Amino acid sequence: MTEIAFQDAYPEDLSHCYGCGRHNPQGHQLKSFWDGEETVAEFQPEPQHTAVPGFVYGGLIASLIDCHGTGSASAAAYRAEGRALGSEPPLRFVTASLHVDFLRPTPLGPVLKLRGTIEEVKERKVVVAMTVSANDQVCATGRVVAVRLPAAMA
Amino acid sequence: MTEIAFQDAYPEDLSHCYGCGRHNPQGHQLKSFWDGEETVAEFQPEPQHTAVPGFVYGGLIASLIDCHGTGSASAAAYRAEGRALGSEPPLRFVTASLHVDFLRPTPLGPVLKLRGTIEEVKERKVVVAMTVSANDQVCATGRVVAVRLPAAMA
Repeated sequence: MTEIAFQDAYPEDLSHCYGCGRHNPQGHQLKSFWDGEETVAEFQPEPQHTAVPGFVYGGLIASLIDCHGTGSASAAAYRAEGRALGSEPPLRFVTASLHVDFLRPTPLGPVLKLRGTIEEVKERKVVVAMTVSANDQVCATGRVVAVRLPAAMA
Repeated sequence: MTEIAFQDAYPEDLSHCYGCGRHNPQGHQLKSFWDGEETVAEFQPEPQHTAVPGFVYGGLIASLIDCHGTGSASAAAYRAEGRALGSEPPLRFVTASLHVDFLRPTPLGPVLKLRGTIEEVKERKVVVAMTVSANDQVCATGRVVAVRLPAAMA
């Protein structure tokens, strides 16, 4: 795995995301890494992240897929350009579309493991497919179409 | 609009969802209502619900769509059966699939308004299409395929 998390290579002023920003102390601070050609992240849900008792609420799973997807998109764009993660100019992506299929109830308790596969890399668009597993069983799959951060948000 | 929120008619033991459960004091406690043939909900994001500074993070928008979708599904199922909201046996739905298209950055500050349209009602499946607006401008659209709560979760 890479040493530095994708999100920790984001520019200082673009690192406040509730899902993955290192400067958001109340947020999830998701950290994503390369594992060969795939990307990985782990997250420990908290007791309040309930759907019905015993299971993780879908909004958290969607949020993790969203942030792992945009993080993976950034890392894939740097890799495609042969550049070091975080080098200037920054390659920061946001989500254009998000899709999640909930395959089975996700138990609340175990660490959730995300794995991402880069499906497509273009200059302004990256597509990432993902799985979310608990206890080594895939509970949800997701797909993010990520696009370069629009000027309106920078 | 209806007097009681869809989520406030959920059974006591199925009201702990982080997104919309009245028994989750740390959660969003989203409340959804009928407005004629459509369903509506409002949510005031908090400062920490940031994507990049000034904009709402996508995971929150996905979470609101998820919970407004399953709430709308429950209400539509009751209505289709000509039953009062919350009457026994309960009609509680979970998300099978969730899709969100982020049309433009969602400003962080204004109340977010969700509107839902019931696209399909079957005994075990309801499809709900939604919009999320800020300052009367649609920022995201969503679609939830909701299914009756599986026995494994009850």
